[in-house]
Amino acid sequence: MRFRIRPVETTFYDLFAESASHLVDGANLLAQVLDPDVDRTALAEQMRDAEHQADETTHKIVKRVNSTFVTPFDREDIYRLASSLDDVMDFMEETVDLIGLYEIKELPAQFAAQVEVLQRACQLTAEAMPRLRTMKDLEEYWIEINRLENQGDRSYRRILADLFGGGYKSLEVLKLKDVVDSLEHAIDALESVANTVEQIAVKES
Amino acid sequence: MRFRIRPVETTFYDLFAESASHLVDGANLLAQVLDPDVDRTALAEQMRDAEHQADETTHKIVKRVNSTFVTPFDREDIYRLASSLDDVMDFMEETVDLIGLYEIKELPAQFAAQVEVLQRACQLTAEAMPRLRTMKDLEEYWIEINRLENQGDRSYRRILADLFGGGYKSLEVLKLKDVVDSLEHAIDALESVANTVEQIAVKES
Amino acid sequence: MRFRIRPVETTFYDLFAESASHLVDGANLLAQVLDPDVDRTALAEQMRDAEHQADETTHKIVKRVNSTFVTPFDREDIYRLASSLDDVMDFMEETVDLIGLYEIKELPAQFAAQVEVLQRACQLTAEAMPRLRTMKDLEEYWIEINRLENQGDRSYRRILADLFGGGYKSLEVLKLKDVVDSLEHAIDALESVANTVEQIAVKES
Repeated sequence: MRFRIRPVETTFYDLFAESASHLVDGANLLAQVLDPDVDRTALAEQMRDAEHQADETTHKIVKRVNSTFVTPFDREDIYRLASSLDDVMDFMEETVDLIGLYEIKELPAQFAAQVEVLQRACQLTAEAMPRLRTMKDLEEYWIEINRLENQGDRSYRRILADLFGGGYKSLEVLKLKDVVDSLEHAIDALESVANTVEQIAVKES
Repeated sequence: MRFRIRPVETTFYDLFAESASHLVDGANLLAQVLDPDVDRTALAEQMRDAEHQADETTHKIVKRVNSTFVTPFDREDIYRLASSLDDVMDFMEETVDLIGLYEIKELPAQFAAQVEVLQRACQLTAEAMPRLRTMKDLEEYWIEINRLENQGDRSYRRILADLFGGGYKSLEVLKLKDVVDSLEHAIDALESVANTVEQIAVKES
Repeated sequence: MRFRIRPVETTFYDLFAESASHLVDGANLLAQVLDPDVDRTALAEQMRDAEHQADETTHKIVKRVNSTFVTPFDREDIYRLASSLDDVMDFMEETVDLIGLYEIKELPAQFAAQVEVLQRACQLTAEAMPRLRTMKDLEEYWIEINRLENQGDRSYRRILADLFGGGYKSLEVLKLKDVVDSLEHAIDALESVANTVEQIAVKES
């Protein structure tokens, strides 16, 4: 017979892994927006579905916190982690939606660099979540996310400089800036996830 | 003779109810901005008064936390709740002020939908605050606020699509976007209030 | 022989003082941007150096939290304080960087009023940090920061009214608004620092 210690708690790790895996799906959907031939209406629909699924996972986490007496780490940290993961998806969905709403024809080329950062960060986050169980090998994750966020920030500023460089009409600048801001917020939310993981790891160590 | 248990703590509930009732007043003042014949200077003045009163209530809460040994729930949650309630008023006041500062002549028609969401959410928040005392029947409140926030988000995006649709000059777009952003932030702050109430209720249950 | 009580903890105060003193340096660098004859490229470089130094201090604080068993106040509050101080520098660096990126020729005159508020608030914060050790005479600090933030908010809105007053082209409005927003965020972050100090003081009292 095998004993499992604190069996109640295990599902939190599964749910965080589920939440982060939605982000990988979402980032891959978002990347398709760069393809000028993609059907944007269908893509926006798929993105909304991905966001609904992410919402459901978030609600499962909140419900579990409500009904569980012993949690693997502080309730507040569980909330914060779940809500930052949820924010990432919200901003990715917003990005795709804004591109559609604003009827943006062509995205600036450097936009792709920001999307790549986002995809990489989502991937790393999904790989890190299962490691919450043992709290091992998490430091490399949050260091790398911070590095990626810095890289994303440099891309972001290059895009801004280009947008305001005189090649765009002011209404176009306004639209594109909203889109890159939304993408930047998604990357920032991934950094919040990493910061929360760091704080949890510190408390547990 | 009737005994009251933990008499010191009761006033926190009264103060949160007072804070939320300022929001109902503020939202009703804000709604008057939709009337093209309203005296906007006088309205901005009334809005500033409402904000000062809300500030006073917030300070009373913070002072009470400082001077009270036993609080009805975690000090941090009291701070967070008080400060989110305060944020709602700040954004409502900002909305009215921006409309005046930017000398906006006419607000887009869909603006009214967002204001209605805000009024309804303030009303529900004011009705929920007294229920913190018993922690009963709060779930319907935070579910409804989340639903309203989603509805507000859809209005918000429709407004953006319309603003960028070509019917406005870019300077006008910039101004109106600032105003709807401010309103959106007020609605988001009401969602933060609801999320904090949910977290408090979870801890207490 | 003199005994020092809780010697391990003392360095946290030194590190917070170090962090805030970087802010004073940063605010003074930022103020140079108002001089039309300053070498902006060199200034942006110095600002980036100041930001890197601030980052190092922040990392020292986080590392120390990780390796210290007894902390002078809650780990969460140490994180929040360190991260708000870090935010101030990030926004100041962003302000200078945006002015360069956007190739802004001339800053509006009222910009100086906002910079003065920022310099004064950084100075007060640096003076307050060492008082965390005794938790004495902190109230005047957070009251004054709140007063300065209100004053900064009024300057901010006057700048917005002026920007939208018709004297600027829409692209110029967009650029300048980004810059004043960034400055406003730096001031808001200083208010967050003050609010965190207030909360720490309340818990300790």
